[in-house]
Amino acid sequence: MMRLIKGKKIKLGIVGGGPKSWIGHVHRISSRFDDEYEIVSGVFSRNSNISKTFGKKIGIDKDRCYSNYQEMADKEAIRFDGIEVVAIMTPPSSHQVIAEKFIDKNIHIISDKPFTGDLLQAKKLFKKIKSNKNIKYALTHNYSAYPMVREAKVLVEKGKIGKVEYVNVEYVQDWTDGKIVNKKNAKKILKWKINKKIVGTSAVLNEIGSHAYHIACYVSGLKGRNVFADIKQVSKTVKMDNNAQVMINFNNNAKGLLWTSVMARGGVYGLRFRIFGTKGSIEWVQNDPGYLKFNPLKGAVKFLERGFFNAELSKKFSRIKFGHPEGYLDAFANIYKEFAESLRTKAKKRWFFPNEYEGLETAKFIEACRISNKRKAWTKIK
Amino acid sequence: MMRLIKGKKIKLGIVGGGPKSWIGHVHRISSRFDDEYEIVSGVFSRNSNISKTFGKKIGIDKDRCYSNYQEMADKEAIRFDGIEVVAIMTPPSSHQVIAEKFIDKNIHIISDKPFTGDLLQAKKLFKKIKSNKNIKYALTHNYSAYPMVREAKVLVEKGKIGKVEYVNVEYVQDWTDGKIVNKKNAKKILKWKINKKIVGTSAVLNEIGSHAYHIACYVSGLKGRNVFADIKQVSKTVKMDNNAQVMINFNNNAKGLLWTSVMARGGVYGLRFRIFGTKGSIEWVQNDPGYLKFNPLKGAVKFLERGFFNAELSKKFSRIKFGHPEGYLDAFANIYKEFAESLRTKAKKRWFFPNEYEGLETAKFIEACRISNKRKAWTKIK
Amino acid sequence: MMRLIKGKKIKLGIVGGGPKSWIGHVHRISSRFDDEYEIVSGVFSRNSNISKTFGKKIGIDKDRCYSNYQEMADKEAIRFDGIEVVAIMTPPSSHQVIAEKFIDKNIHIISDKPFTGDLLQAKKLFKKIKSNKNIKYALTHNYSAYPMVREAKVLVEKGKIGKVEYVNVEYVQDWTDGKIVNKKNAKKILKWKINKKIVGTSAVLNEIGSHAYHIACYVSGLKGRNVFADIKQVSKTVKMDNNAQVMINFNNNAKGLLWTSVMARGGVYGLRFRIFGTKGSIEWVQNDPGYLKFNPLKGAVKFLERGFFNAELSKKFSRIKFGHPEGYLDAFANIYKEFAESLRTKAKKRWFFPNEYEGLETAKFIEACRISNKRKAWTKIK
Amino acid sequence: MMRLIKGKKIKLGIVGGGPKSWIGHVHRISSRFDDEYEIVSGVFSRNSNISKTFGKKIGIDKDRCYSNYQEMADKEAIRFDGIEVVAIMTPPSSHQVIAEKFIDKNIHIISDKPFTGDLLQAKKLFKKIKSNKNIKYALTHNYSAYPMVREAKVLVEKGKIGKVEYVNVEYVQDWTDGKIVNKKNAKKILKWKINKKIVGTSAVLNEIGSHAYHIACYVSGLKGRNVFADIKQVSKTVKMDNNAQVMINFNNNAKGLLWTSVMARGGVYGLRFRIFGTKGSIEWVQNDPGYLKFNPLKGAVKFLERGFFNAELSKKFSRIKFGHPEGYLDAFANIYKEFAESLRTKAKKRWFFPNEYEGLETAKFIEACRISNKRKAWTKIK
Repeated sequence: MMRLIKGKKIKLGIVGGGPKSWIGHVHRISSRFDDEYEIVSGVFSRNSNISKTFGKKIGIDKDRCYSNYQEMADKEAIRFDGIEVVAIMTPPSSHQVIAEKFIDKNIHIISDKPFTGDLLQAKKLFKKIKSNKNIKYALTHNYSAYPMVREAKVLVEKGKIGKVEYVNVEYVQDWTDGKIVNKKNAKKILKWKINKKIVGTSAVLNEIGSHAYHIACYVSGLKGRNVFADIKQVSKTVKMDNNAQVMINFNNNAKGLLWTSVMARGGVYGLRFRIFGTKGSIEWVQNDPGYLKFNPLKGAVKFLERGFFNAELSKKFSRIKFGHPEGYLDAFANIYKEFAESLRTKAKKRWFFPNEYEGLETAKFIEACRISNKRKAWTKIK
Repeated sequence: MMRLIKGKKIKLGIVGGGPKSWIGHVHRISSRFDDEYEIVSGVFSRNSNISKTFGKKIGIDKDRCYSNYQEMADKEAIRFDGIEVVAIMTPPSSHQVIAEKFIDKNIHIISDKPFTGDLLQAKKLFKKIKSNKNIKYALTHNYSAYPMVREAKVLVEKGKIGKVEYVNVEYVQDWTDGKIVNKKNAKKILKWKINKKIVGTSAVLNEIGSHAYHIACYVSGLKGRNVFADIKQVSKTVKMDNNAQVMINFNNNAKGLLWTSVMARGGVYGLRFRIFGTKGSIEWVQNDPGYLKFNPLKGAVKFLERGFFNAELSKKFSRIKFGHPEGYLDAFANIYKEFAESLRTKAKKRWFFPNEYEGLETAKFIEACRISNKRKAWTKIK
Repeated sequence: MMRLIKGKKIKLGIVGGGPKSWIGHVHRISSRFDDEYEIVSGVFSRNSNISKTFGKKIGIDKDRCYSNYQEMADKEAIRFDGIEVVAIMTPPSSHQVIAEKFIDKNIHIISDKPFTGDLLQAKKLFKKIKSNKNIKYALTHNYSAYPMVREAKVLVEKGKIGKVEYVNVEYVQDWTDGKIVNKKNAKKILKWKINKKIVGTSAVLNEIGSHAYHIACYVSGLKGRNVFADIKQVSKTVKMDNNAQVMINFNNNAKGLLWTSVMARGGVYGLRFRIFGTKGSIEWVQNDPGYLKFNPLKGAVKFLERGFFNAELSKKFSRIKFGHPEGYLDAFANIYKEFAESLRTKAKKRWFFPNEYEGLETAKFIEACRISNKRKAWTKIK
Repeated sequence: MMRLIKGKKIKLGIVGGGPKSWIGHVHRISSRFDDEYEIVSGVFSRNSNISKTFGKKIGIDKDRCYSNYQEMADKEAIRFDGIEVVAIMTPPSSHQVIAEKFIDKNIHIISDKPFTGDLLQAKKLFKKIKSNKNIKYALTHNYSAYPMVREAKVLVEKGKIGKVEYVNVEYVQDWTDGKIVNKKNAKKILKWKINKKIVGTSAVLNEIGSHAYHIACYVSGLKGRNVFADIKQVSKTVKMDNNAQVMINFNNNAKGLLWTSVMARGGVYGLRFRIFGTKGSIEWVQNDPGYLKFNPLKGAVKFLERGFFNAELSKKFSRIKFGHPEGYLDAFANIYKEFAESLRTKAKKRWFFPNEYEGLETAKFIEACRISNKRKAWTKIK
């Protein structure tokens, strides 16, 4: 049976997201957005002093600032006012063990993406999650929480673009801080992302490619069946994947392309998908997230705006009236908000936040890409 | 001497923004954004039960949910844990009296726009604010808090577009809910906005035109000198200004146009400014707020992106890395955040949040428009 | 009775558009576009040698290159193979006398805009045109010939946006070549445009404001009733209008704003209109001319594309399949093409090219602006 | 020695582009654009009457309207006023034999793309062209003739984006006229494009993919080294390639992706390239062809506009001042114009129009794609 949430505000603990972390900042604002959570505990560093100092700064009792997640899980689990949810925002390869520890203590999980560092970990974690009926799990593939992405998902479900025939998705960034990466400066510029033990199977695929594959499946309703992947290293001496292009055959025989890069120079930054069906197509870009371009087979192109008159779904996941822009944080907070709602109710409802099934699928995709790239051949996702 | 802020979180009281209010929702999220405020008290309705029920729902002790602002000010002022800041989000004509009451109790003010309902009130309130050295005042002309609007302001100050010669600003919305407004349905559709006693001098100018004039002056660094205004009523029977077009002569001899409307049909919604100088021009639109278009006199158009490499100012007012969009709430929260910073420090620093001087100027502008419209002649702003 | 066109290609003469002329180039390409005209005669300079040299270069017999329009009209009129149409592309104040001369010779007229230099000339020319049933007249307000502008016109006619309530039109350019214009350099930079005898009533209004007013009326189907205009001089010493802002009351009680400038620094160049009705609104911008944004009162924004499935009218005035862009020349050539069609047929059809009625209206508007600016008062268009 | 052009206007013959042809219309307007050519002869149908009727309609003597290209070549070659250039706009597989016949008669060639139907033909034609020093050859990969595409080419050459690392190009259309293509309707909808004998190696790659590959190489200055291609049939029963996705390794070790489709539903139409180098990136889209987005490694994104102050190259290939749009025809005509210039001069100059080298390369690429798709393996371009 699901553990009950006791008070108005859900007691939230945090693992990761310390002083220099960007994503820590994002999670904390998102948890505050709708006044559903109270951050009461955390591990912000392996150094106990740093963890306590930072924790204090953000308003946490120093007794509940820990230097390792095991201690946190053990101690919080036995407090009468212990945390009910933990948000994990450490690097990929640690997601599994941390999540498992809290699952053992019946604490719900919000985990940053990717699901885990590799497929082996993913299978273990998935099994663990399914083994404990007391806990719920959410994965912050946050782009899927933009109102118009969810509007797109439902529009495809309703058959508005017909049978999906082609999916084009890309997520391109530039991580190089304006420099040519070489052996000497790689560690300074790219940090733990060049350490496979930390980043997992593939830097570019785990860090941002996972978002691209997730959103493609999330909106199209499809799963990949097999892939042909071509993954590039930064250079011969610096071992980190920095670009991946993947052809995908989907389970309904649709085809698709995924391109993800962390070396797309010049501030060209962006997540975008285009999905083509027998009756029309849709397009969405993160840099203009309040709009969904809908191209019916015949007739005028339509710009569906977040919260417009007929868009019930996008209204549900909006806070601000249409005409005013929402952004990245508003979408990220949608995951926190809906997860809270799911914890408070016993009702069977449809939830839109990404979950462990989606996490496992994405890990399978990345592993298939790794193998395909090595074999230079089409490879089954399994 | 300025009153000191005692703890980590600033104790915030709210007047207005009850159950059905959109702007109440906006203020509350904004106050939580950066964890600087704690909402501990409020008047959410003149009906005591409604006020308490709503207050409780958002986590406020029922003893601190009041049914009128006078009681709230009197009681909070004598509590040892009383509010330090009040946020006022009632209709325009009540801003002055409410603010004055709290000023008398040495409580800082964050007020929704416009400054007041009319110029008479504005002059009184301005005087009152200046009379009490213990308090600080912020006015939520929130659009001026977008990072790229502030980047624009500084860019103009630095002379990047030369001497300003022309300012074009517009804020257009559609308030009619898809209906033709007539005597019968006016009250249902437009509510208190058709009541001049509540909305003040002019519905369209007070409610959204004030934003347009404010942002034009904020960014250009200019003040209007005189105006020629043409204001339109909804219809002969329904007395509410729904469209205003204003020619402006600025204090440096620049000319300008302001257009604001609440009957711009078809979901065309938007705040936009374009400012032309002797060395170039800039353009910004609220629907794509992370970009500032900068057109130098010669050479390529530049798209300055929020948080990009050289934009120190826009970085200061951003939370999210460039490449990801921020929205309306992020900007609104910038006012709350910087106001908190201003309350915590004794240092002389430059603050970017709108203040009572800007409020008074905008009230003068609206009054001059009212007179010009009546006289059908150029009218001095005074 | 209308004069008949004898052969396949219409014999075209040209007055103006000599060696350094941009607009001459435009007219000549436009006349060739659809293989309907043959340029056989012209006045390209008052200097006979220059006229002949230039004429020869573009393939005209030197006997038919003249140094003044009177001689050209007289001689061409008596040739058995004389011109059937003359295209006039001299500065505004000469349009009337030149056109009248050719009208007397029963030669059809394609005239560059504006109709004439001032209202007095306009009234004379209009009367002259109406007095000769043998000739037809077209005025190259070329922007009205873009397919999607004509689609917009018909969409308004059909009531798709309901009763028009507001019209916003602007045409802004920068003529200063990146310089601050002063007494010394004015003549070099702005040429005959600072000479009122040549440019007519107002430089900015005659040269580009006339396009803005024309397109506003063309699409909305309205006429201005009275105006309040504010026109600016370049400087005290340089007498040329470089900026005009005009409030317009239309004949159906709609209101509107027109802004036109030749000092909008930074390459911001553009003609745009937005028309708001009781059932929706439309927007078109010259820089993306293949699209018409149509905002119905409720529901999604539609992007109507030139030549798309249901757009019969825009297909009629297109040459290239949708998906591929058309530009300025394609639109300009539409006037030449349809004028040829109108000359070849005796059938009563609706023609979309601008004519003398529209020319006269625009001249009245400009004169009313001049007077209003002087009087600083609302002024009737008459 | 190159054959001389005798008079002002170049005598042009046309093979193909008959009554129902769209591309015929395009070529004819393009040839007239700059008054350099005179169409004096043609084969517009294999039916002699149709050919003569159509030819007469467009102003050609009926004696010079032929029903087969051999007769045309033979007869025109011996006329004292015979054609100097032939423009070929028949389906792909006939390009080689037709061109060869005219080459034998020392007549210059403007050929529509692709170069030929397949690689075997391409090699033969290339050899033939190189064997006759008297003739020149231009291939209408027209998109490369947009001013800003040529500006992009030179910008890359000058090293403004550094060493090219990644090329992303796509050309997507919908040829299905809003229908689901099946065995029954395929021939009606897709015509000769489903006949491999006519369309050549691959419908989608020959008809539009060839443009995409050409423009990628044209601008980047690279050649493909090997490819991995995945080409899709319309259906099991209808044999026509309708979608191709190709990974490309370029000769400088850059990687790239090409996607081309004729089943991209909903009017999404477009050619676009993005090229990423070590110092920045560029982006261009055909639907907004007057702009080149240039993203330097650091600092603001620049929108380079056709004809702007510093863009000498784009000015050279423009006719209309910046601020006004040019379109598809203006670009197409650039090939005709520059080809005329190349025929009139003996000077050694750099020409920007596509030629036989580029044609051969594209044919090699398409053949490599065909083989790769069959082998499901990376395949060398040779």
